Amino acid sequence: VGNIMAESALKTRVQELENEVKSLKKQLGDNKARQKIETMSSEVVDTNPYSRLMALKRMGIVDNYETIREYTVAVVGVGGVGSVTAEMLTRCGIGKLILFDYDKVELANMNRLFFQPHQAGLSKVQAAEHTLRNINPDVEFEVHNYNITTMDNFQHFMGRLKNGGKTEGQAVDLVLSCVDNFEARMAINTACNELCQTWFESGVSENAVSGHIQLIKPGESACFACAPPLVVATHTDERTLKREGVCAASLPTTMGVVAGLLVQNTLKYLLKFGTVSFYLAYNALLDFFPSMTMRPNLDCDDSFCRKCQVEYQKTESEKVEEPVEVVKEAEVSTENDWGIEIMTETTEEESNAASGPVPKLAEGLTVAYTLPTKTKDEPKEAVSNGNGLSLDDLMAQMKTL
Amino acid sequence: VGNIMAESALKTRVQELENEVKSLKKQLGDNKARQKIETMSSEVVDTNPYSRLMALKRMGIVDNYETIREYTVAVVGVGGVGSVTAEMLTRCGIGKLILFDYDKVELANMNRLFFQPHQAGLSKVQAAEHTLRNINPDVEFEVHNYNITTMDNFQHFMGRLKNGGKTEGQAVDLVLSCVDNFEARMAINTACNELCQTWFESGVSENAVSGHIQLIKPGESACFACAPPLVVATHTDERTLKREGVCAASLPTTMGVVAGLLVQNTLKYLLKFGTVSFYLAYNALLDFFPSMTMRPNLDCDDSFCRKCQVEYQKTESEKVEEPVEVVKEAEVSTENDWGIEIMTETTEEESNAASGPVPKLAEGLTVAYTLPTKTKDEPKEAVSNGNGLSLDDLMAQMKTL
Repeated sequence: VGNIMAESALKTRVQELENEVKSLKKQLGDNKARQKIETMSSEVVDTNPYSRLMALKRMGIVDNYETIREYTVAVVGVGGVGSVTAEMLTRCGIGKLILFDYDKVELANMNRLFFQPHQAGLSKVQAAEHTLRNINPDVEFEVHNYNITTMDNFQHFMGRLKNGGKTEGQAVDLVLSCVDNFEARMAINTACNELCQTWFESGVSENAVSGHIQLIKPGESACFACAPPLVVATHTDERTLKREGVCAASLPTTMGVVAGLLVQNTLKYLLKFGTVSFYLAYNALLDFFPSMTMRPNLDCDDSFCRKCQVEYQKTESEKVEEPVEVVKEAEVSTENDWGIEIMTETTEEESNAASGPVPKLAEGLTVAYTLPTKTKDEPKEAVSNGNGLSLDDLMAQMKTL
Repeated sequence: VGNIMAESALKTRVQELENEVKSLKKQLGDNKARQKIETMSSEVVDTNPYSRLMALKRMGIVDNYETIREYTVAVVGVGGVGSVTAEMLTRCGIGKLILFDYDKVELANMNRLFFQPHQAGLSKVQAAEHTLRNINPDVEFEVHNYNITTMDNFQHFMGRLKNGGKTEGQAVDLVLSCVDNFEARMAINTACNELCQTWFESGVSENAVSGHIQLIKPGESACFACAPPLVVATHTDERTLKREGVCAASLPTTMGVVAGLLVQNTLKYLLKFGTVSFYLAYNALLDFFPSMTMRPNLDCDDSFCRKCQVEYQKTESEKVEEPVEVVKEAEVSTENDWGIEIMTETTEEESNAASGPVPKLAEGLTVAYTLPTKTKDEPKEAVSNGNGLSLDDLMAQMKTL
């Protein structure tokens, strides 16, 4: 009888545990995570995660949305901006994402989007990969849990930018810098100059109420070393500037806006629609969004930047009245199903003033770093074309203010 | 012996199941979800989820960050914009959130942030509450899974705006409209006019590449009925405009930016820092951000709007040279620990031009709806003050263009 009772109790226990497993699995959603989808479809059904993206074609915004699957984007830094950037690209169905970070998730990160308290203690790239793969299993993920600025890691990092594309051996299509320090920015800059790799810089101020994105096309626009921040120019170790018990402020709003602007410009760059901004800042206190273009510095410390400049000038001079880039004008959909429409009509003149190359430094902008005065015997050859101005021109303008 | 074997097998099974439960619980993070925190602290430790927010005080941006716990915000519509809005407010540690939606999560929503595939089929408010409570258990949540536009629900909805504040019987502090149709916007407008309740309108265009936010202070700025979209003015049932097999496009980028701008302005409004924008639009193709202020329409169809206008004029005329609102100027932190700083210096003149009341309609903006011509015997009394212009003034300006 004792055995039978013990057996019965065990059976009840098994039943209880099986129910708990079932309930936990349901909560985890393991039985619901969606299957891979072979081809992006425009079909308008509740079960199609791509219907709202493919609708961009019918709306006349993007010609070729499905080509997004061919692209690889490297995101360096998976913090407040980088994690949201990676999530947006994942939900957009990017072909491949390569993530770099060496930090761990902390509760102190919970004031920004993406990570959740139960992930505290996990590595950021591993936690991010787990969440992102659940959101969209169609994306290919590659993650690296290391600091890109050490000698060995830097070589590996550069190798992945050069060879980590959709087909191994192919370069990535774009690098997005979402790091929070200058040393890492300089490492990315060095790698991208050597590879002549286009990338976006991004940043948020330590008081949390402003941020910016900057498109760096080596040779065509200023690189990070062309007009370095003071801390870089003076070779200051930025770690010595940190103080015990003091941290930078941050807001999910500012970081969400910067990530949104960064990924929006990434989509415009990859899928060739709209106008890609070279530099766009966000001042949250005033809702002010200055924009400008910075030409490269002929005297840039980075020899690869100077090399890219020469190559860019050569390519440009060989072009015979050909437009540099085919950009698609803002189109208003002829199918206006819901009558929802933003009341904006911009003339070409206004749009030039709002973004792209501008004839002078945008209002409210100042240059933080001034170059040493040139000696007279140095040859001066301003790298400038069209309505863009060289850094020297800008400096001269600044002095007159 | 048979019994002993059966018992042994059952014991093994119990052990296996217990291990599975342990592993699933770990994945779910139930054993790691953070505990409630009694008081917001500025302490800089990895375990403090508020350190980066409280740092806004040391940076000179916000005087009183911890008062955010006293505020209640109602979010109507928990879709692409509303869900991210709710998440940002939750991570910022808002006192109470009231969510309204009657929709279910679908895989077709996965191109926007927040919801995950395993939540497909759940009600949006329930799925959102579960995720948000895990992210920040200090926030008080109240969710309503209904359509606010039906007669009964509308009364209940209005009751919750009137009484749902931190202390029952107190009004909410702000209402955020994140809905995707005009009928719901008009319902919110009607309720807020009757309650003289300040709210923010928000929206994203059906081609996914523009959006806006609009602050509506009944009596002070134009309400949604003051200059209604054509579909509202002509009493068109917008459902008849939808077509089989066609859906609006949407992007996580545009919706993330709009949610970011919406919550940023919500924080500025509640915590009294920076300048709150009355109307701010985002044109994603050009990275163009027009801003303007719209005064109320004397002939607004909504009698409660007209009543609020009279009350606002009365209050304003009783003020003797007192500033309407104390806004804090942009301050640059004196403690610049990392040397990270956005290179923006704005004069008062520039800041006026960039946001807040403007002397004329911003470049690139047009008015979508024109009022019927007035009959001569109607008294005309333009509601306008300071450098703001009435809708009539704006219309007159438009005609000259």
